[in-house]
Amino acid sequence: MADGDSVQGLEVGSSATFSKPVTQADIDMFAQVTGDTNPLHRDAGYAARTRFKAPIAHGMFGAGLISAALGTKLAPDSVVIYLSQNLRFRAPVTAGDTLTATCTVTAVDAERSRVTLDTKVSKQDGTDVILGDAQVMVEALG
Amino acid sequence: MADGDSVQGLEVGSSATFSKPVTQADIDMFAQVTGDTNPLHRDAGYAARTRFKAPIAHGMFGAGLISAALGTKLAPDSVVIYLSQNLRFRAPVTAGDTLTATCTVTAVDAERSRVTLDTKVSKQDGTDVILGDAQVMVEALG
Repeated sequence: MADGDSVQGLEVGSSATFSKPVTQADIDMFAQVTGDTNPLHRDAGYAARTRFKAPIAHGMFGAGLISAALGTKLAPDSVVIYLSQNLRFRAPVTAGDTLTATCTVTAVDAERSRVTLDTKVSKQDGTDVILGDAQVMVEALG
Repeated sequence: MADGDSVQGLEVGSSATFSKPVTQADIDMFAQVTGDTNPLHRDAGYAARTRFKAPIAHGMFGAGLISAALGTKLAPDSVVIYLSQNLRFRAPVTAGDTLTATCTVTAVDAERSRVTLDTKVSKQDGTDVILGDAQVMVEALG
């Protein structure tokens, strides 16, 4: 059963974090690259007419930080392949916030080289921004 | 029951699409803005040592196109607030592909101003790239 306990060195409880300060330039670049040019993310006058009152980052921008934690921190010597991700957007993010994505292995399927992770993005004050879970396949580099 | 049937003009069957060709410059920009600098997305020599054989786009890049469909096409005169998104990554994307995100309303909760959508990202040849569903709140602009 020893092989059942880990995939490329990852076992239940293994974790990875990635942090990034959020600037308006980041938000503008995210809008440009994805095409999500909704004015809520860049137009203060428009945002004032919404419940948020000021421009907010795209929800999917925060999700990108989960991708960064999985892609650069979880198993940097192996190949990490994204299979699924569930996201629950819990709180808005504004320029000036610093986000931290934390991914923690909750299950390992050694036979299929897959791990399941709890994924969370939080702000500098501890507020949960995104909650969810992910599944990745982790393979040796050829 | 009339109010139970729509939220800001959206009803079951309403849909939105957003298409975008994918370039290596897009992939590089997505890596820069999210911090996901995994070499699988930019280094041909590295990618050759993986099952993909050539660089692929970030899975979350495709998810950004769902955000664009919801944020710019679904209800452009209203405020669309992302509540949740489930993503199943089904096929790799490479520079040169053109992606289309299609979001179709499957349920409406008028009392809470929420709609549920089937969300799909596909390639120019019809291959499903991402399957999943989303929930958004849709409010009038103040």
